[in-house]
Amino acid sequence: MPKLVDQADTAPADTPYAAHNQPKDTPELRSLYDAFDAEHLIPLWKEIGDLMPMEPSSRAHPHLWRWSTIHPLAAKSGDLVPVGRGGERRAIALANPGLGGRPYATPTLWAAIQYLGPRETAPEHRHTQNAFRFVVEGEGVWTVVNGDPVAMRRGDFLLTPGWNFHGHHNDTDSPMAWIDGLDIPFVHYTDTAFFEFGPDEVSTRETPERSRAERLWCHPGMRPLSALEPMHNSPIPAYRWEHTDRALSEQLALEDEGYPATVEPGHAAVRYTNPTTGGDVMSTIRAEFHRVRAGQQTVGRREVGSAVFQVFSGEGTVTLGDAQHRVGTGDLFVVPSWTTLSVQAETDLDLFRFADTPIFERLHQDRVEVDAPDGGLS
Amino acid sequence: MPKLVDQADTAPADTPYAAHNQPKDTPELRSLYDAFDAEHLIPLWKEIGDLMPMEPSSRAHPHLWRWSTIHPLAAKSGDLVPVGRGGERRAIALANPGLGGRPYATPTLWAAIQYLGPRETAPEHRHTQNAFRFVVEGEGVWTVVNGDPVAMRRGDFLLTPGWNFHGHHNDTDSPMAWIDGLDIPFVHYTDTAFFEFGPDEVSTRETPERSRAERLWCHPGMRPLSALEPMHNSPIPAYRWEHTDRALSEQLALEDEGYPATVEPGHAAVRYTNPTTGGDVMSTIRAEFHRVRAGQQTVGRREVGSAVFQVFSGEGTVTLGDAQHRVGTGDLFVVPSWTTLSVQAETDLDLFRFADTPIFERLHQDRVEVDAPDGGLS
Amino acid sequence: MPKLVDQADTAPADTPYAAHNQPKDTPELRSLYDAFDAEHLIPLWKEIGDLMPMEPSSRAHPHLWRWSTIHPLAAKSGDLVPVGRGGERRAIALANPGLGGRPYATPTLWAAIQYLGPRETAPEHRHTQNAFRFVVEGEGVWTVVNGDPVAMRRGDFLLTPGWNFHGHHNDTDSPMAWIDGLDIPFVHYTDTAFFEFGPDEVSTRETPERSRAERLWCHPGMRPLSALEPMHNSPIPAYRWEHTDRALSEQLALEDEGYPATVEPGHAAVRYTNPTTGGDVMSTIRAEFHRVRAGQQTVGRREVGSAVFQVFSGEGTVTLGDAQHRVGTGDLFVVPSWTTLSVQAETDLDLFRFADTPIFERLHQDRVEVDAPDGGLS
Amino acid sequence: MPKLVDQADTAPADTPYAAHNQPKDTPELRSLYDAFDAEHLIPLWKEIGDLMPMEPSSRAHPHLWRWSTIHPLAAKSGDLVPVGRGGERRAIALANPGLGGRPYATPTLWAAIQYLGPRETAPEHRHTQNAFRFVVEGEGVWTVVNGDPVAMRRGDFLLTPGWNFHGHHNDTDSPMAWIDGLDIPFVHYTDTAFFEFGPDEVSTRETPERSRAERLWCHPGMRPLSALEPMHNSPIPAYRWEHTDRALSEQLALEDEGYPATVEPGHAAVRYTNPTTGGDVMSTIRAEFHRVRAGQQTVGRREVGSAVFQVFSGEGTVTLGDAQHRVGTGDLFVVPSWTTLSVQAETDLDLFRFADTPIFERLHQDRVEVDAPDGGLS
Repeated sequence: MPKLVDQADTAPADTPYAAHNQPKDTPELRSLYDAFDAEHLIPLWKEIGDLMPMEPSSRAHPHLWRWSTIHPLAAKSGDLVPVGRGGERRAIALANPGLGGRPYATPTLWAAIQYLGPRETAPEHRHTQNAFRFVVEGEGVWTVVNGDPVAMRRGDFLLTPGWNFHGHHNDTDSPMAWIDGLDIPFVHYTDTAFFEFGPDEVSTRETPERSRAERLWCHPGMRPLSALEPMHNSPIPAYRWEHTDRALSEQLALEDEGYPATVEPGHAAVRYTNPTTGGDVMSTIRAEFHRVRAGQQTVGRREVGSAVFQVFSGEGTVTLGDAQHRVGTGDLFVVPSWTTLSVQAETDLDLFRFADTPIFERLHQDRVEVDAPDGGLS
Repeated sequence: MPKLVDQADTAPADTPYAAHNQPKDTPELRSLYDAFDAEHLIPLWKEIGDLMPMEPSSRAHPHLWRWSTIHPLAAKSGDLVPVGRGGERRAIALANPGLGGRPYATPTLWAAIQYLGPRETAPEHRHTQNAFRFVVEGEGVWTVVNGDPVAMRRGDFLLTPGWNFHGHHNDTDSPMAWIDGLDIPFVHYTDTAFFEFGPDEVSTRETPERSRAERLWCHPGMRPLSALEPMHNSPIPAYRWEHTDRALSEQLALEDEGYPATVEPGHAAVRYTNPTTGGDVMSTIRAEFHRVRAGQQTVGRREVGSAVFQVFSGEGTVTLGDAQHRVGTGDLFVVPSWTTLSVQAETDLDLFRFADTPIFERLHQDRVEVDAPDGGLS
Repeated sequence: MPKLVDQADTAPADTPYAAHNQPKDTPELRSLYDAFDAEHLIPLWKEIGDLMPMEPSSRAHPHLWRWSTIHPLAAKSGDLVPVGRGGERRAIALANPGLGGRPYATPTLWAAIQYLGPRETAPEHRHTQNAFRFVVEGEGVWTVVNGDPVAMRRGDFLLTPGWNFHGHHNDTDSPMAWIDGLDIPFVHYTDTAFFEFGPDEVSTRETPERSRAERLWCHPGMRPLSALEPMHNSPIPAYRWEHTDRALSEQLALEDEGYPATVEPGHAAVRYTNPTTGGDVMSTIRAEFHRVRAGQQTVGRREVGSAVFQVFSGEGTVTLGDAQHRVGTGDLFVVPSWTTLSVQAETDLDLFRFADTPIFERLHQDRVEVDAPDGGLS
Repeated sequence: MPKLVDQADTAPADTPYAAHNQPKDTPELRSLYDAFDAEHLIPLWKEIGDLMPMEPSSRAHPHLWRWSTIHPLAAKSGDLVPVGRGGERRAIALANPGLGGRPYATPTLWAAIQYLGPRETAPEHRHTQNAFRFVVEGEGVWTVVNGDPVAMRRGDFLLTPGWNFHGHHNDTDSPMAWIDGLDIPFVHYTDTAFFEFGPDEVSTRETPERSRAERLWCHPGMRPLSALEPMHNSPIPAYRWEHTDRALSEQLALEDEGYPATVEPGHAAVRYTNPTTGGDVMSTIRAEFHRVRAGQQTVGRREVGSAVFQVFSGEGTVTLGDAQHRVGTGDLFVVPSWTTLSVQAETDLDLFRFADTPIFERLHQDRVEVDAPDGGLS
């Protein structure tokens, strides 16, 4: 049986509210509380410590999953679990230990390793959940988005915004694994999900180097006159590694030449954007790529909203609140809301990041704090 | 111990996914599943039926609370439970029977009856949660918002957008009750809450007819040149009943004169708006007032997102999905996401409504379906 | 023959460009210049002083027209000039002395006195130009906007946004005069005008106190659910004097009570807005009402863009750049772009103002400078 | 002396207004008209035919300038006219024959050929006018924008948005010519110009292949985390020919493969955009590149607002209203507001286009009509 997600695990007694003089426990009060129960009523004064903390206090844990652990398990499921209609995808989700046994990386974000064996096909469907894929290693799978075949290769960031039909097929004799990111928990919690099955087969088995949408859209600063309407989500289906890598390299080179380009010394970063708005790729998900030079440590930073990182390459140590983890290629870790993160790079360290911040920016609930050099906040 | 909110209670077997050929139960598979458990991993194919329904299938129930039940319980708590620092408010929340014993009217919305005895004061605080009050009966309390005293009277809709200090005091010898609406569940689930205590006393005991902000802002189509900056939330602290009532009466009068003005025949409605944007009063909460003429039935309508209604006056029957309820003054009912609602007015029926739709409109997750006259959809 | 508007009347010699070593006047150069002429070419170096001044240097003059002069002339035209199809309106435009004999108050704005005799009718038409009326005295005319009759009374500000059919009729035995403001010069210069004739008669002779659109829209902070679509221009056809007057009085009262409400001490002001956006009433025209207490002087202020003021009541002195004018009820004056304006009120002074600033704000060309107390700029 | 721009040259008699019964010419009327003149007043009924046409009727002509004519004249000015402080630029503007001898290509747009001799420098300055350059042939000049050296090469489209310091220097022993486009006439007419001199020399003589801003910004769909603030104008200083050419080729290839990509059969086109908004590169200027296959004719199209085209390569015939012109490489032609344009390509025909449409879209004055296949409108 699935476990709890959104339960109260702090009582007012543990909180600044503890000063409160709770009403005296009398038979009359017990009788009132029984009446509340019977009528589906709950008094605020018993719950406020949990409901209204002084600052975000997430049930989600800042947890780490190692690629060396999850990849073999995904491979094993490749042997034992068929992929096809009904199960839809051979995807294995990160289940945050704080979230009661639900397949949620954070309260809002889904992160899974997906595995497709040689010549396998994952059938087409569409759903209102926004989805992307990020490829930490391998190639040979094409994701077909609304009939447009999109090659998946190492370092690529691939989009399937909500309500686009999509399926995948492996055109090679080797398996391939990648990570999926979606807003499934958010959509589930808020009761906004729609889903439709498409064909059991993918609608094309073409395997072009570049998709048609990339050929239309991936020219810097240009858009086709045939597609001028506003678009809530990015029309770019694949942000290729060669562009990401070059963008980051240029930032560090410019820094070396003495010009402002990086986020902080030795820390280059790009945000993937919707070229029709300049904003985030999808309305609920932000995606970025960070490169930290060997020897650098990023400033401690905490944000409203949660994030998931995957190490793309390199070695380092991440500090998540009070805990530290050494990380290497493929490792995934979760940063709950308002948890301070700092990254220490041993080698040059490349990190893919996704987060739910666009939700909170649109609702004006976003906040950020950055540690000041002297250990304070700025 | 608090109960579940976001648990899976449907298995793939009950859903269109059931056609799926689940993997054969072998010792190897069990061993794989055990490894998943140990590593905080959950496979999609076991959860998809719950996580990705064909359409929103809320755990929240379309429940009704009667004013004649909750008001006496609130009055009783007035006798037994002090109001003050720590408990903060004598507010008793509607706990949707489908939401595992949490004080949530819907997955995103909090609705509570708040009760303030003669001469009592609720201390000042502020929080990022957006809040409003709606007064179904009574008067005599002033809510002090950032030092500006705002009278609360029957039919008024009063705002306390996030991060404004506010407290209440009852200036009379009679108690007063009203309803509070907030986005507490949404903010709690998404880990975006901040809270600060203010003074234990309200910062002013002035009792003017109109607040200073109303005097600045409540002139139709005008804004002060001294306040031209953009505002995420409405600067109007009180939407007075006299204006709401007149707006609705005018719509029905225009309909009688043959001009388009109502939503549908015999159904007048206004949305409360932020005069600096024309949009919703607060970024997470929509509020409206509906008036249905005696004898009219509103068309069946379902929306992504949840809503809470309170009957302000009149008698009628509401159809919520398959269930019907007779309702009268003060009764509150919840409309979960994608649940069809239709209202049949016996007398002229006035209804206050609030909903979480602004969240989904900003994220482009909003959908609406309206029953067609022939019983289909349009 | 109409005279010049946009001619160069300053040569580089008069400007900071004068340092420029113009090319030596040789036969070859003359021959080159002749070739330019023949081929419709003009060199920048001969024009730059005019074209690209150090700061805006308008051809428009800061001119004043007295109501005591223009109203009698309008009345005289009432005797001599019929109103009807073809001439369309008995409107007499302010022709800025600096604008070459064109009927332009400023390069972008049209301001005219319109006069309608007893029982006269101005036929219906529509045009893309945005229009409004402001009533300094009198009543008895209804402007019919898309079939909705809108009473015109002293102090009212009335809108006819682009492409709405409109006509006027005088329902009384007395003449009435008011001012019209439009973006005719801007639309003319930019070649964006469309025009259509409507009926020669107004489509209704009803004379209600309030128009249907006011009954739908003039409830502070509320909009009808039947009209939620975005609107580029305000749906409010009349901003009534009673609301304007009250808004200004409240600002001054709040100031007296010690609260921020006015623009500067003794200077109350409201901007008329589109309630569906919180922005300006129409995309090209800003309208405001200012009240300056007797004895107060407003701070000197200059803006990119031009404005026209009409004194609604009171007496005072306006300083426009270097010139000063005593002004009284009905007097109109023009403030060209980047001309410093300060108003000194002898009695309480009420001023209606309209300006083209929304154009420049949308194009990010707006700038404002305010004189600092010590005579500098802030 | 400069000639007229914005004069009335059509009288009501020539227009649909002619039906109007102008007032009878009497001594009294003449006396009234004299009084109007004396008081700087002009009656609408004498001007309406000019001011308020049924549809835009531009004074600008649909004129053509041949590269073979203007380039030699520019070269000649290279011999006779020094470039330097005061004259600022050796730029020779297209003076539309309909615009009274002003250096205006259209009422809003400036288009000029600029010429820089071997090793010459055009000094730094900045102005609120938005500017770009387009290079039809040659290379070797660097434009230095806020200290960032930007190479100019054939086919490149280069931006200098308002209020950025910029100068040019020719790093070679050959002259170079290109076209400049600005919103000078619009800014002049609306009195919104500011200007500042910078150093007489350019601030750097570096000659990198790519500017620093390109290295930061020209990665498709990515933006640096160090520059997330909103930007009214594009941060991309150079849209390189290789990208433009590839974007157009891809559209035609996609069309050949059977997919929607072109504007109409055989007609590929891209709009240059601001990657931080997806909108036009600058707030007042739209820029596009069009490629029409040999043998194709584009559909007749007219728009509110004016445009200037330069043929980049190829041969064809343009129909501008009633007139036809054969055009070839470098030729420039003007399309006044609401003038129907159709292009017939003899060879593959590449066209650069710029227009003032963003102004009118932001003000909601934009309109477009496209000829229907049967000769009607759609």
